[in-house]
Amino acid sequence: MKLSSYFLPILKETPSDASIVSHRLMLRSGMIRQLGSGIYNWLPLGLRILRKVENIVRQEMDKAGAIEILMPTLQPAELWQESGRYEDYGQEMLRIKDRHKRDMLFGPTAEEVVTDIFRNNVKSYKELPINLYNIQWKFRDEIRPRFGVMRGREFLMKDAYSFDMDYESAKASYDNMYVAYLNTFKRLGLTAIPVRADNGAIGGDLSHEFQVLAETGESALYYDVEFEELLKQDTLDVPSLRKLYAAADEKHDAANCPVPADKLRAKRGIEVGHIFNFGDKYTKSMNVLINDKEGKSFHPNMGSYGIGVSRLLGAIIESSHDDAGIIWPQSVTPFKVGIINLKANDADCTKVCDEMYIALEKAGIEVLYDDTDNSAGSKFASMDLIGLPWQIAVGPRGVKAGTVELKNRKTGLKEEVSVESAIKSVCSL
Amino acid sequence: MKLSSYFLPILKETPSDASIVSHRLMLRSGMIRQLGSGIYNWLPLGLRILRKVENIVRQEMDKAGAIEILMPTLQPAELWQESGRYEDYGQEMLRIKDRHKRDMLFGPTAEEVVTDIFRNNVKSYKELPINLYNIQWKFRDEIRPRFGVMRGREFLMKDAYSFDMDYESAKASYDNMYVAYLNTFKRLGLTAIPVRADNGAIGGDLSHEFQVLAETGESALYYDVEFEELLKQDTLDVPSLRKLYAAADEKHDAANCPVPADKLRAKRGIEVGHIFNFGDKYTKSMNVLINDKEGKSFHPNMGSYGIGVSRLLGAIIESSHDDAGIIWPQSVTPFKVGIINLKANDADCTKVCDEMYIALEKAGIEVLYDDTDNSAGSKFASMDLIGLPWQIAVGPRGVKAGTVELKNRKTGLKEEVSVESAIKSVCSL
Repeated sequence: MKLSSYFLPILKETPSDASIVSHRLMLRSGMIRQLGSGIYNWLPLGLRILRKVENIVRQEMDKAGAIEILMPTLQPAELWQESGRYEDYGQEMLRIKDRHKRDMLFGPTAEEVVTDIFRNNVKSYKELPINLYNIQWKFRDEIRPRFGVMRGREFLMKDAYSFDMDYESAKASYDNMYVAYLNTFKRLGLTAIPVRADNGAIGGDLSHEFQVLAETGESALYYDVEFEELLKQDTLDVPSLRKLYAAADEKHDAANCPVPADKLRAKRGIEVGHIFNFGDKYTKSMNVLINDKEGKSFHPNMGSYGIGVSRLLGAIIESSHDDAGIIWPQSVTPFKVGIINLKANDADCTKVCDEMYIALEKAGIEVLYDDTDNSAGSKFASMDLIGLPWQIAVGPRGVKAGTVELKNRKTGLKEEVSVESAIKSVCSL
Repeated sequence: MKLSSYFLPILKETPSDASIVSHRLMLRSGMIRQLGSGIYNWLPLGLRILRKVENIVRQEMDKAGAIEILMPTLQPAELWQESGRYEDYGQEMLRIKDRHKRDMLFGPTAEEVVTDIFRNNVKSYKELPINLYNIQWKFRDEIRPRFGVMRGREFLMKDAYSFDMDYESAKASYDNMYVAYLNTFKRLGLTAIPVRADNGAIGGDLSHEFQVLAETGESALYYDVEFEELLKQDTLDVPSLRKLYAAADEKHDAANCPVPADKLRAKRGIEVGHIFNFGDKYTKSMNVLINDKEGKSFHPNMGSYGIGVSRLLGAIIESSHDDAGIIWPQSVTPFKVGIINLKANDADCTKVCDEMYIALEKAGIEVLYDDTDNSAGSKFASMDLIGLPWQIAVGPRGVKAGTVELKNRKTGLKEEVSVESAIKSVCSL
């Protein structure tokens, strides 16, 4: 992509209305713009990253055997009245009346809708277990939206719902999602600690929140330091991970903690996922019955599994940035490399840049090519700000010597190398 | 995909509430389910096709140089009050109040939002022309939703918006979209006639509706038969196409028609796209000013370009089906081939099917493999219903003779061929 034909409105000043670093950087790098309170436009750069994050989430769901559907943003109130949640949900639910005065709502979640799909279309125990997921915009009318996409009102969520015959089978479905979540966050370059959470009146230990470590996190948590090592391994050792201690502040009891003080970490976290078994709560209230092998009817056991897809972008930035800007992990970077033409009105520089651009695109590498006539200083600053893993700067002096400058955004290391060597490095790393 | 681990609820009976063939077939083939009036759940098969259609639309927009963004579903009322459309839009606009009693709406279109993005982020004439598009769910509160996704309330729309310095440049942007639309519909296997339409008080001929020919279309149209031939050509002859006559019923004047009667066709059409130049209507009312080279300020000239993405699925089915079901064009088919195991409890049949499934997937072919223990008759009927271009049926007799039955869904032609030959045919066609 040539910057001259892209739409990347960089802000030089720090926006005054953004109190945390990810919000500031997303605004400054032209990823998002606020449309209304807690509602954001996704500009080209932000959308590109959102789609990459979304696709990793999707791939891991598919790999785990979940099946993608798409439920509408608007839902009829009747289903929520049936489950008993319509009144309970409170003011975070955006309630709407259509032209015929029918009560509707903008879905904050979709247990009722997916349960309705299930009861209308699944007839036999043979079709179980089944896990249906969707990635769709949700709305929660937060009283005080803040932190940009971290606590917005309209946000992109992946929500999956499992249906099983009994608790044993439901536990296997749950464990399957637990592993899928660990794999997802790992691929996104995040250290996400699974913290046991409350699952209401149902009991059992089938509820975990996944917390990305970040100083700006909203929750305080305590966890066994071994998590950090185990989560880094190429092959995740799930049984060992499941045994480790992690608890949110309000659940942590220092006096009775099983982890010795020198192995206990106290950090802050950003919740990016929540998995949860709630038994027959909805299948009972919404009267879903399936016959088993013997013809005896039962209410299927359900679990739900959420990931805040748009929120993840904030979480990734919170955990991966420096003073100059964002540092994208390879897996979700909008472009792998940026080419900076330091003198766009110099025919030799432009020739080298153009050829490199064509060669890299041909090799299937995503390139952002700054071919504008902005100043060198502003080009360097913008490229650092948007945080692509690699930068190649092309200036008149280097071109004469047959070299370009290859920079690793994360380490800051720069080297003068030949054009061929720069291309080779970017392709192979 | 193995059918036993998929979610494809086929309906044997014809749904009584569906009056047109595409609606019936989408329900029967398990593509969609109604959630509320004019609001549909997309089940796995339907979603898969929706994404393919969406991607073709996206690719042709990208190829034409438009840049993708994503605007939220909910919009603040203020922008519409500014443009003057808030009261005018009438009851089709779904008006919403949030918990703080602020007026919002579910976007039926996005001229105001994109104009607001433009005025806040584009500062110089040097950034023009620019075309921003998004593919997002819209809501129009139709008084009587019907025909399934053809006239739903929540629907997926691609909407693009061009900004230019003057009319001449805007005309070039418009022509660029005209060609992109022809290419898009061609790739989707559709004959879409561009019909000149009204563009309000602005004048000029910069407004076309693209009408897919179908008996069930809502509009009557008259057009030069040459359209049909020209639209079939590999390379579209745009200047010739632009000269041809086409008019909607209410505009057609038989007495003064420039096309001789024997070259005039009268057919019905489904509107799937609309392109439109509206000059400075929004940039003026919303006070958008840019300075030109000489420092003189001007209101940019805008156009908007819509495609009903979810509606296209209905239009494709209306124009491509037979008594047995849907016939998907190759470009959007959910799977290229279906394997039918006629005797799933026969080890030899299953072995042949399994091997063929693995070989085809390895070759990058999308396969739906019916490995269930349903009856042969019901498997054949389902496969015809969902309309994949190819079917391979594997039965005990054939397996003994070393053959399978390869069927072309469109022509109905069947041949007994070897497994290798069936694979080869499917891969190469």
